[in-house]
Amino acid sequence: MGIDNVVDSVGLVQPQYLEISEKISLDSGESFGPIMVAFEKYGTLNDDKSNAVLVLHALSGDAHAAGYHSSQDKRPGWWDMMIGPGKAFDTNLFCVICSNVFGGCADTTGPMSVNPVTGRPYGASFPVISIRDMVKVQKKLIEALGIRKLLCVAGGSMGGMQVLEWAVSYSDCVKGAMPIACASRLSPQAIAFNVVGRRAIMSDPKWNEGNYDPKDPPAQGLEIARMVGHITYLSEESMQLKFGRRLRTGDKYAYALDPEFEVESYLKYQGEAFTKRFDANSYLYITKAMDYFDITNGSGASLEQVFKNVQAKFLVLAFSSDWLFPPEQSKAIAKALRAADKEVTYVSLESSSGHDAFLLEEAQTAPMIKNFLKHLQISA
Amino acid sequence: MGIDNVVDSVGLVQPQYLEISEKISLDSGESFGPIMVAFEKYGTLNDDKSNAVLVLHALSGDAHAAGYHSSQDKRPGWWDMMIGPGKAFDTNLFCVICSNVFGGCADTTGPMSVNPVTGRPYGASFPVISIRDMVKVQKKLIEALGIRKLLCVAGGSMGGMQVLEWAVSYSDCVKGAMPIACASRLSPQAIAFNVVGRRAIMSDPKWNEGNYDPKDPPAQGLEIARMVGHITYLSEESMQLKFGRRLRTGDKYAYALDPEFEVESYLKYQGEAFTKRFDANSYLYITKAMDYFDITNGSGASLEQVFKNVQAKFLVLAFSSDWLFPPEQSKAIAKALRAADKEVTYVSLESSSGHDAFLLEEAQTAPMIKNFLKHLQISA
Repeated sequence: MGIDNVVDSVGLVQPQYLEISEKISLDSGESFGPIMVAFEKYGTLNDDKSNAVLVLHALSGDAHAAGYHSSQDKRPGWWDMMIGPGKAFDTNLFCVICSNVFGGCADTTGPMSVNPVTGRPYGASFPVISIRDMVKVQKKLIEALGIRKLLCVAGGSMGGMQVLEWAVSYSDCVKGAMPIACASRLSPQAIAFNVVGRRAIMSDPKWNEGNYDPKDPPAQGLEIARMVGHITYLSEESMQLKFGRRLRTGDKYAYALDPEFEVESYLKYQGEAFTKRFDANSYLYITKAMDYFDITNGSGASLEQVFKNVQAKFLVLAFSSDWLFPPEQSKAIAKALRAADKEVTYVSLESSSGHDAFLLEEAQTAPMIKNFLKHLQISA
Repeated sequence: MGIDNVVDSVGLVQPQYLEISEKISLDSGESFGPIMVAFEKYGTLNDDKSNAVLVLHALSGDAHAAGYHSSQDKRPGWWDMMIGPGKAFDTNLFCVICSNVFGGCADTTGPMSVNPVTGRPYGASFPVISIRDMVKVQKKLIEALGIRKLLCVAGGSMGGMQVLEWAVSYSDCVKGAMPIACASRLSPQAIAFNVVGRRAIMSDPKWNEGNYDPKDPPAQGLEIARMVGHITYLSEESMQLKFGRRLRTGDKYAYALDPEFEVESYLKYQGEAFTKRFDANSYLYITKAMDYFDITNGSGASLEQVFKNVQAKFLVLAFSSDWLFPPEQSKAIAKALRAADKEVTYVSLESSSGHDAFLLEEAQTAPMIKNFLKHLQISA
């Protein structure tokens, strides 16, 4: 990818903003507001506003899903491979919308936003939020755009959790739902990795109980958190293919404690790069929301019961080498939907790319997504 | 296990020590000495010293493999389930020996030992070592005990790497070899987890380039390293069984950033407990030695070629849910041994316990180990 692809993409896009001035009630019981929502739109909303597709980002994503903000950008938005003219989410047909999640750090209100009451960042006084709270904020955005019913909600990983929440909480507003590489609740193993990441951040002396200077953040803690995350996004196989046991330079061990394997410098690079674009407190709040995620909300209800009132048709996608959200977890979603008499297609795709496959396997997924969206549109 | 089991165990044991006064040459090219080796013995060495079994510990283990140091001890040695009268390693028949590895922190010379030249701990001036260096030190111990040939070398995880190194480097000194839950070289994924652990330690301001006061060590960094490690020792399934998504107290989310899932407090407890018994610099050096481990030593030779001169018979054990050292990696060892015309039995055992299975699956492994040792003894 690169700037040469601007012509193949949705081109230059403008970040947009919505201020939700009234307070919204959160799962924690708190009321919170005002909330600024950063979002982007690709393609044109039709007259009856029936062609809107809401795309939902993962832990480290943002509203910039496709195209370029400026001709100087080195990279397009995070799902540009999938969103654009003629692409899986075809912007000649659909109006694709993506917003940064509530609690995030890319212009939607989150822990590092300034609290209008104190004039300082919320820091750790920001309320602990849930995936449902994020979706509640997205619902306000969709209402503000005058959209009554979304043609489709789609997203991978944490985005997939939001898809499920949309389909269950706002069942009459969702025509099609596409949860990719996700689960109906976060597994203890995935919680454990989040716990390590949070612990690394909160152990960094610069974290200072969440009240740090944005110019001097707990970067080392966040770097470690991201390194752990990255291991879980790859597979054993993709690590073998990408790095093997290759050394960064030469073929002799240095007999020093410094990084020397390629996998080591890759993780270090990814960790460092992340600290330049992501906020440590956001990382804490968003991973906590993921840990809490259980679409049954601990109600004791079965997945089948929870899906009873769902109106959306489903396309559930998973990837064979994804061990963070293994195909079995997606399959369980599909099984429960079927048991609840819903229309669902479940596909586990062969891929060596691990969890990251949802961002990479365009060739395999695009035809399925196109087909799914086409049939949703026809039945409109 | 508990003090009531003293009678079923090897009973009270005395830590023993050997000082190797001459310098040994390390893989790095450095010469290093003197080295103190802490070891323990269970059972009696027979007159021709043909019944010695060397047991090799994993990353966080030590020389205290069985029995109790005092009647006040709450727990016996780390492999007590397997070592004792009538047990898998039957101390009525064999003299079982275990030593703390070179580079360790349980009385064998390691980075926190006092450098006799400076009168202060070596810290980061300790040489970077390899698994082969550890085994070289063990060889000195075995020689000092007057043992020419070991009936068997056995160990799991990093202990299994040492088993392979023994069988290859000292082929005429090993009659039987039992690598358990290990690999012929560390995978990039396993390296990656070690990298995160080291990064956490080295990012802790208290690490101070390795020159910290032993009374004020980088405990938070080591705690995070151990938390990461623990996730890799369990399996997705064992985490589901052990913790699921259960909360520590009640069934309502606290909506706070504090630990609240059971898996969270488990990891925190394990991390904290570890910092009370393990040294952060040792963790750096030992994980680095593991990262370096490749029994072919990057020589370009195949595994089969490396095993050509091996004289030992092999029992290779792996566990189905071990994803840190998956059965395929053990199978590759067995396959190469067979291709090199060696006598080898490979068994992948069903277990939900993940990598930890090598410490837990006594009921499944003990009969195989007994049988293997019996036949080694008969053919003596």
